[in-house]
Amino acid sequence: MSDTLADIGEFGLIEKIHELLKKEGAGSSEVKLGIGDDCASFLPRPGYEILITCDCLVEGRHYLPEYITPVDLGRRSMSLNISDVGAMGGHPLYALVSLGLKAETPVSYVKGMYRGFIAELNPFGASIIGGNLTKSEGALFIDITLVGEVEAENRLCRSTAKPGHTILVTGNPGQAAAGLLLLMHPEPGQDLRDNPLVRVYNTPSHRAWEGRAIAKSGLATAMIDTSDGLVGDLGHICRESGVGAVLIQDKLPLSNELRRVAQQMALDPYDLVLNDSDDYELLITCPPEHADQISSIVNSLGRVSVAEIGMLTGATGNITLMLPNGSERQLPPKGWDHFY
Amino acid sequence: MSDTLADIGEFGLIEKIHELLKKEGAGSSEVKLGIGDDCASFLPRPGYEILITCDCLVEGRHYLPEYITPVDLGRRSMSLNISDVGAMGGHPLYALVSLGLKAETPVSYVKGMYRGFIAELNPFGASIIGGNLTKSEGALFIDITLVGEVEAENRLCRSTAKPGHTILVTGNPGQAAAGLLLLMHPEPGQDLRDNPLVRVYNTPSHRAWEGRAIAKSGLATAMIDTSDGLVGDLGHICRESGVGAVLIQDKLPLSNELRRVAQQMALDPYDLVLNDSDDYELLITCPPEHADQISSIVNSLGRVSVAEIGMLTGATGNITLMLPNGSERQLPPKGWDHFY
Repeated sequence: MSDTLADIGEFGLIEKIHELLKKEGAGSSEVKLGIGDDCASFLPRPGYEILITCDCLVEGRHYLPEYITPVDLGRRSMSLNISDVGAMGGHPLYALVSLGLKAETPVSYVKGMYRGFIAELNPFGASIIGGNLTKSEGALFIDITLVGEVEAENRLCRSTAKPGHTILVTGNPGQAAAGLLLLMHPEPGQDLRDNPLVRVYNTPSHRAWEGRAIAKSGLATAMIDTSDGLVGDLGHICRESGVGAVLIQDKLPLSNELRRVAQQMALDPYDLVLNDSDDYELLITCPPEHADQISSIVNSLGRVSVAEIGMLTGATGNITLMLPNGSERQLPPKGWDHFY
Repeated sequence: MSDTLADIGEFGLIEKIHELLKKEGAGSSEVKLGIGDDCASFLPRPGYEILITCDCLVEGRHYLPEYITPVDLGRRSMSLNISDVGAMGGHPLYALVSLGLKAETPVSYVKGMYRGFIAELNPFGASIIGGNLTKSEGALFIDITLVGEVEAENRLCRSTAKPGHTILVTGNPGQAAAGLLLLMHPEPGQDLRDNPLVRVYNTPSHRAWEGRAIAKSGLATAMIDTSDGLVGDLGHICRESGVGAVLIQDKLPLSNELRRVAQQMALDPYDLVLNDSDDYELLITCPPEHADQISSIVNSLGRVSVAEIGMLTGATGNITLMLPNGSERQLPPKGWDHFY
């Protein structure tokens, strides 16, 4: 029988986590105090703004425990936060991990999650410097706070887009939604864990390297990650910048896998691309003359494609989809809402 | 009927919180981006270390919802974090609030919590700059990350205490434990909400003003808050500093209320003072010749008393209690463990 948290207790678990991080995690010379004091402490670099974000995953709501390994769960939860830092053009530095665990959770499960966290942090030289452990009375939850830095002059946000600017998006938004649909309607005997769409849902790629390169170029006017779905997040840009948008359906990137699942489930594939989906791609706006250069920057990293999908307009808050026949469809700005 | 979160949705709630914070919260000119972007962003002050801590309260585990108002719950959860920053000698700056809420939670309840958060933050000019909202499948939870700052040369931690140094403690540790006992064994018809011990349990005072003044004086060698109980946290200092400790029972501060509850419940009052209790007092160590000056500093703030309760020794990890008859009792270092 493997040890559970009830067997080794909170302080026993903290010690095991500490050991694992020391051995397998990236350190940083700027960290003055890490795990084991009332606070963690670090010395910020002069000239840099500090970025800080937090995202929480609740078992059964933000992931399906039966279909995800603890390592992938760790990667997933850290990627979400890295995506937020990347969407501002920043570089991740330090994470605080707050876990709500059950007494019967195996220690190996928690260690797996930490291996997932550091798998995502290590490439940035970023480290876990603190956190909290508590017993959850219901579902397990993982609440991560991530600290990053960005040169004050390079930071990108949502409120600085302009009418006439081009809209770009990385990757294939909607694939995570398709993966989740597969998980929720499994066919008997089907092993879905290695399905490419399920993998996108379970361990979405952040685009922090791309976001950082775009921010450093100074070519973009606004940036956001698509955590609330493509139209949801485009709606955030429109609201905060006081602009509208036209998307061109023919230009929306559509993967073959997504097309196949949509057909199989008798859904419009473009609904999957536009609506709620957990993809963590980047939506970028820029003056039209910069679009090619931004595409080159993203392409040169060799990790993900990028597509021009439409244009911002002066019709504040109004998002429409231009169909192949030239007619327009109104898109109600919607996103992932946690309480409906 | 009052609105619930299901009625107004996540984005409706975010808007209401945003309004409340704008109207009632303290702002800061260093905040570059607050709520409404992928990350919050601020410009750190040169020469200061950034402190960062997070603490999570779970309904039914860290508070009893039937006995605490939403405002007090907000105050309680923010105080815990302020206490951590204060125990390092720091000044609180920015908070991120991550909430796991139920669909049926009234909007007014959430607004009450935020009023509690800012009641504790405003005196420091500190503000809420971000967070996360999610639906909890089980108990409500409140996970706060607090960022503070401290001059690099003034920061206090656990690992720098020395044998021969004096141990001081603020206030009356154990009162929160007594308050919790009262709540867990209520007599029929008794309204406990205004009981002074219950008030200490529900809304413990942080000692961040005292912690900051002590740190700035440069007179202390280590500091910690008593969130794991007096002996639990003294144990942390002993472990991290490689020292032992002798506590003198006669010198432990004992309030009349605590003495009364101990008598009523047939408990040793000193067990309440020493063991698990949610008081958030400060444990301070210093060279003996500095003890009076530290007491004066704490007294001059006029908010809480301070007592010398013992001495550090070279017997690493060994904590004993000296009884009035001169004999010694071994105290197993224990603290609040979340998984037993």
